[in-house]
Amino acid sequence: MTETPRISAGQIGRSIPRVEARAKVTGTAEYIHNLRLPGMLWAKICRSTVPHGRIRHIDTSAAAAITGVQRIVTAADIRNVIAEPYYGPAFHDQPILAEEKVRHVGEPVAAVLAADPRIAEQAAQAIIVDYEPLPAVYDEVEALTSSVFVHDQLKPAGTFADLKHLAGRRDTNIALDFHLRRGDVEKAFAAAEQVFEHTFRTQQTMHTPLEPHVAVADVRDGAAVIHSSTQNPSFVRIEIARLLGWPENRVRVKTAFLGGGFGAKVYVKVEALAVALSMLAGRPVKIALTMEEQFFTISRHASTFRIKSAVDKEGRITARHCEVFYNGGAYADIGPRVAQKSGFTAAGPYDIPNVAIDSFEIYTNRPPAGAFRGFGMPQLVWAYECHADLIARGLGIDAVEFRRKNLLREGMPHATGTIMRDAATAAVLDRLAQRIGWGQPFNRGNGTLRRGRGIAFGLKAAISPTTSVATVAIAADGSCTVYCGTVDMGQGSTTAMAQIAAETLELDAEAVRVVAPDTDVTPYDMGTLGSRSTFHMGHAVRLAAEEAKAKLAALAAETGVPPGTNLPLAELFRRKYGMQAGTVVGSGSYLPSYVSPDHATGMTPNATPFWMVGGSAAEIEIDTETGQVRVLRLVTVADAGTPVNPRIVETQLTGAAIQHLGMTLFENMEFTDGQLRNPNFAEYKIPGIRDLPEQLTGEIVDAVQQSGPYGAKGVGETGTFAVAPAIANAIHDAVGVRLMELPITPEAVYRALRTAAGDPLGDT
Amino acid sequence: MTETPRISAGQIGRSIPRVEARAKVTGTAEYIHNLRLPGMLWAKICRSTVPHGRIRHIDTSAAAAITGVQRIVTAADIRNVIAEPYYGPAFHDQPILAEEKVRHVGEPVAAVLAADPRIAEQAAQAIIVDYEPLPAVYDEVEALTSSVFVHDQLKPAGTFADLKHLAGRRDTNIALDFHLRRGDVEKAFAAAEQVFEHTFRTQQTMHTPLEPHVAVADVRDGAAVIHSSTQNPSFVRIEIARLLGWPENRVRVKTAFLGGGFGAKVYVKVEALAVALSMLAGRPVKIALTMEEQFFTISRHASTFRIKSAVDKEGRITARHCEVFYNGGAYADIGPRVAQKSGFTAAGPYDIPNVAIDSFEIYTNRPPAGAFRGFGMPQLVWAYECHADLIARGLGIDAVEFRRKNLLREGMPHATGTIMRDAATAAVLDRLAQRIGWGQPFNRGNGTLRRGRGIAFGLKAAISPTTSVATVAIAADGSCTVYCGTVDMGQGSTTAMAQIAAETLELDAEAVRVVAPDTDVTPYDMGTLGSRSTFHMGHAVRLAAEEAKAKLAALAAETGVPPGTNLPLAELFRRKYGMQAGTVVGSGSYLPSYVSPDHATGMTPNATPFWMVGGSAAEIEIDTETGQVRVLRLVTVADAGTPVNPRIVETQLTGAAIQHLGMTLFENMEFTDGQLRNPNFAEYKIPGIRDLPEQLTGEIVDAVQQSGPYGAKGVGETGTFAVAPAIANAIHDAVGVRLMELPITPEAVYRALRTAAGDPLGDT
Repeated sequence: MTETPRISAGQIGRSIPRVEARAKVTGTAEYIHNLRLPGMLWAKICRSTVPHGRIRHIDTSAAAAITGVQRIVTAADIRNVIAEPYYGPAFHDQPILAEEKVRHVGEPVAAVLAADPRIAEQAAQAIIVDYEPLPAVYDEVEALTSSVFVHDQLKPAGTFADLKHLAGRRDTNIALDFHLRRGDVEKAFAAAEQVFEHTFRTQQTMHTPLEPHVAVADVRDGAAVIHSSTQNPSFVRIEIARLLGWPENRVRVKTAFLGGGFGAKVYVKVEALAVALSMLAGRPVKIALTMEEQFFTISRHASTFRIKSAVDKEGRITARHCEVFYNGGAYADIGPRVAQKSGFTAAGPYDIPNVAIDSFEIYTNRPPAGAFRGFGMPQLVWAYECHADLIARGLGIDAVEFRRKNLLREGMPHATGTIMRDAATAAVLDRLAQRIGWGQPFNRGNGTLRRGRGIAFGLKAAISPTTSVATVAIAADGSCTVYCGTVDMGQGSTTAMAQIAAETLELDAEAVRVVAPDTDVTPYDMGTLGSRSTFHMGHAVRLAAEEAKAKLAALAAETGVPPGTNLPLAELFRRKYGMQAGTVVGSGSYLPSYVSPDHATGMTPNATPFWMVGGSAAEIEIDTETGQVRVLRLVTVADAGTPVNPRIVETQLTGAAIQHLGMTLFENMEFTDGQLRNPNFAEYKIPGIRDLPEQLTGEIVDAVQQSGPYGAKGVGETGTFAVAPAIANAIHDAVGVRLMELPITPEAVYRALRTAAGDPLGDT
Repeated sequence: MTETPRISAGQIGRSIPRVEARAKVTGTAEYIHNLRLPGMLWAKICRSTVPHGRIRHIDTSAAAAITGVQRIVTAADIRNVIAEPYYGPAFHDQPILAEEKVRHVGEPVAAVLAADPRIAEQAAQAIIVDYEPLPAVYDEVEALTSSVFVHDQLKPAGTFADLKHLAGRRDTNIALDFHLRRGDVEKAFAAAEQVFEHTFRTQQTMHTPLEPHVAVADVRDGAAVIHSSTQNPSFVRIEIARLLGWPENRVRVKTAFLGGGFGAKVYVKVEALAVALSMLAGRPVKIALTMEEQFFTISRHASTFRIKSAVDKEGRITARHCEVFYNGGAYADIGPRVAQKSGFTAAGPYDIPNVAIDSFEIYTNRPPAGAFRGFGMPQLVWAYECHADLIARGLGIDAVEFRRKNLLREGMPHATGTIMRDAATAAVLDRLAQRIGWGQPFNRGNGTLRRGRGIAFGLKAAISPTTSVATVAIAADGSCTVYCGTVDMGQGSTTAMAQIAAETLELDAEAVRVVAPDTDVTPYDMGTLGSRSTFHMGHAVRLAAEEAKAKLAALAAETGVPPGTNLPLAELFRRKYGMQAGTVVGSGSYLPSYVSPDHATGMTPNATPFWMVGGSAAEIEIDTETGQVRVLRLVTVADAGTPVNPRIVETQLTGAAIQHLGMTLFENMEFTDGQLRNPNFAEYKIPGIRDLPEQLTGEIVDAVQQSGPYGAKGVGETGTFAVAPAIANAIHDAVGVRLMELPITPEAVYRALRTAAGDPLGDT
């Protein structure tokens, strides 16, 4: 790895407008939803109506009788084109269409093809499936010991070493168990001055990208082209190639703009079904999910977190035991990695000598859960930062002071043993306290309107080891094009990559073009997820630009240009080629060094390429008559290293905060006996403009990620961490009640107030 | 430049089926003609009805009144989006729409946009243009001294040094004058035993690609995307960028399969108009020419060639003077390069100590002429090989023997001074003689059906210096993708590039993918023209593959794989990246060494990267009652170096021969006062299946191009050279008459027979 240049040529730190802003504002930006190919058929999906059941019979006669229906496809048909039609990044557990059994409500059972999507939809609804109901399990803690098993046999994908011991298991719902042991936890608890123990829960939520999943597959002449709203085209290419038994170079995955992703669009979602249907139909096939179907496709894990801390007389945390249970739903997706990657940071941003962590991914009969902006962190921070406040209250110490006293600072070892580097924990905490006016008097309200303030923050590791590759082409007029597989789903990565390439090549970022990800065009990238792009792809783009720069220098030397001559690139090409001709191509590949945690102890000297540090501070007002919470101020602060584009980073932070205001106050996938009651925006409320705090800010502390490209690091998730605990802590500050689970609905607050007043409501 | 490997790993010389064969046979192959974009408008063109005139007034009122017409565009509108709307590779002489003047019948004057192409067509025909007729000039020899000037002032593009002296000239129709002087020609003529002088003429013909020109332009948000059936996307990108004043990276040119090109689709044709119309309409615009319009767009030069040779007593040619006049039509296109690049080989494949060549590109008021498979050679070889036969007859020497005596052989200096290397002149001549059974008795017919045999061959230089760049990507499963801008228009280049990459990387060619040219994806290539791709792009692909191979070796070393280990590439990637991840990218750029001919003497030590040598031998039968010529046997032989794919080379040769059978016997753009009388396939006859020789073969001689990629060289034009003179020589052999111009219609033959019999036909 070459040494990272850190002195800016003026392009890093520029808050230029996003390069795609004009196209989006004028409506000319293209999305896969707009794509229609000649001869294309639409597929609509018949989905399971039971949470767990054996398929007795599929009656397609009524559907087939509908004029315009081209074909009805079930699992047996899929087997004609894909020999082993199970996919998934961690387990090959998810069938393209359900075979024999269904494992959650909304699981795809059959598909209908028609030229008219309305006919396909009508026919999909006319398919009658007869199920033999099976006992089901929905709760992540119950599932751990249940005799109901979601899968008959576990099939790890072979990708992850820590899943190998689960291969072939028929007697468990555990899809990953991660364990970390540092120091002597039992001894520390025995010696503790005080012990605090709480259980926190979070609900299942949905990503709600306003563009639901969509894919158009066109398989012909031994080659598959898949247009997909995916966050990781390279993975989709590799996974589809695996399913088909084809080499990668016969599978092409193209993206366009994404109408949001947030982790919903990583790994295979509708692409495998689209490919199989195209092969069966011999025509292009489009699958565009509705918002309702999205709820059945992927979600954020519900969770249960039992956290227990030992504290000494000085208010130092001496030991912590964390038991985290992630409700993975019926198919693992990337959930095992959520349980592991967030799991090992479950003890929080604190310096604790004795730590035990047990983190589990659990199969249940709910719709699958996977990656969701924050990758498990919002669930963890919710718990450990509410817990921190409760300890501080228990000890009678100021909540910020308690955190400072226990802070994991630069140079200290993290619970994994990794020494902390470039994690601005102290700066973030200080800035939060400063901005919310911590410790200063404020209007606490009166009567039925009470105000309070809360603060919370967290620490996240980046998923590792992962690879990004980029190429940079310099045309004969000196103009530059960047090829990278990072998907711009609104986060501004295209702009950031243009700035990084421009910095390296000493160009204006506005003049750099970044082409849309397309596996036939842009080289491998592990995926646009886990806040990894600025760091990993930023490095790859930098390295590619450096190689291009070196080749330009060689060209100058070859054509006799004296070093230091300020010759325009166009003139350099003209000298070499005799006309406006040629392309200089540089490529760069980046793989950070990393050491996987030891499977027994969870220890590693190198847990992450970089740390994300972020927090929120909130001031809220509660109407004690209704339980309604108004967020008056919400400040989100992050360590972004040296921000490539400060304005975009700030909007990333506020965007993440707004999204997690939804998780905190409103959003909840409500189930009755495994049936989702509210898969629509009328009943599943996301934040509206009137729900936003009057004061909403995103701020960056002064920091440098020494190992990052030009000092930068990822920040896409950092704003998600601490919104919920900051608000819960503020509620406690305002009215003295503690909410232990999300979302914090008016009903939940009102119930808590009534309970605190000794007058709980009976369940109605 | 690295040394070229010449020992085959088994992929060179394999006659694998074309990689795109299945898609073409099953009808799934996509062409730009099939492309429709959302919101797309069709453009139809109103064309000049006079050969030379001043535009007094354009009345669009009737056209505008037609329901469905979106917009009518004239030159004044074009100026609103393109400040200086003149294009062309040699001269910026061609307006996007005619301004003030028209210079040939069929020149675009206005365009109509409509969602329905039939409405656009109807409206285009309803536009009434009032012209003030101007005197016109049509003949290339007359135009040299005419007082009618096609252009008011000459505007060389600045690309070619040998056009600079024409800049600003107002008093000439010369668009290029090339002069070569070797030895003392006058003295040699004075000392000659005999002098032979003839004038040969060829007619204007059309490329007749079955897919006429088509482009779809979509300009939005400061970026232009052009889908075009172009042979050189890189040139179109650069030229459109120049017209718009934009950097290259904001202009994207994409191709698909081409339904033939043959030189018609090089440089800008309909793309500039499509771009301007899209900018004016704010919507995608498609222009798809009809076959009739194609005749007015680009053609092969009519020509006049005065050739004069001095011969000594031994039958050695001691001096030759060539005067070649190419009829370029109203716009130069690449015609000046035709006149120069073919011009300097006008003395033929003979060793002649004293040579004078004067070659001219001449503007006339005909539709433009440009590149056409052979790039001026079929016109030259027609003349010098008929001339060779006439000399041999005059001297009473066998025609093959005469050629052998004068042959330009390995190591001899060409007229330019360049030493001949790897030009298998003797082998080609010998093979032709052998295959046609030269000197052996054959059935010469009797009565009114007479048979004869003829032979002819020629030598062509490759256009130079030109650059090709390629990249090669190796995916994590070891599968390989080649990125090159060479357009597969039926010649099999995709297959050849796959074979070259496979040879270098030791893969099966069938497993290599070659992506379609797209300037956003594939790096710069000068163009698919002049038989340059196998040599130039072949080298670039080889170099890119070598760089990829070196990077793979470095990866193996880095991951501790001992040298010589036969580790699958997939395993190598897995070792490095911990999973199926990564891409290895190699790039290669190729520019042959070249020395431009001296402007005064035409001399150069390095005239061409390689020589193309090819010839034809024909046996024909004439019906002396009708003048009808039947070609019984047509053998075409070429030096292809080491053929990459022998079967494809052979079909290239027979394909070229069939096409030039059309030029020889049928095809002729017939004009009356500048009006083209036969712009359609009913009246402009191309060879049909019943016109083909009973025996038609293409053959390759044993040869190696030492400087070529794996010994290969280009062969796309080689089969075009000598069909016409071989047939004319066979006619002479059969019936003793000499045709001096093309095409050799039954009428022409019949007239020649009657004239030879002392009974010429009076003109009717």
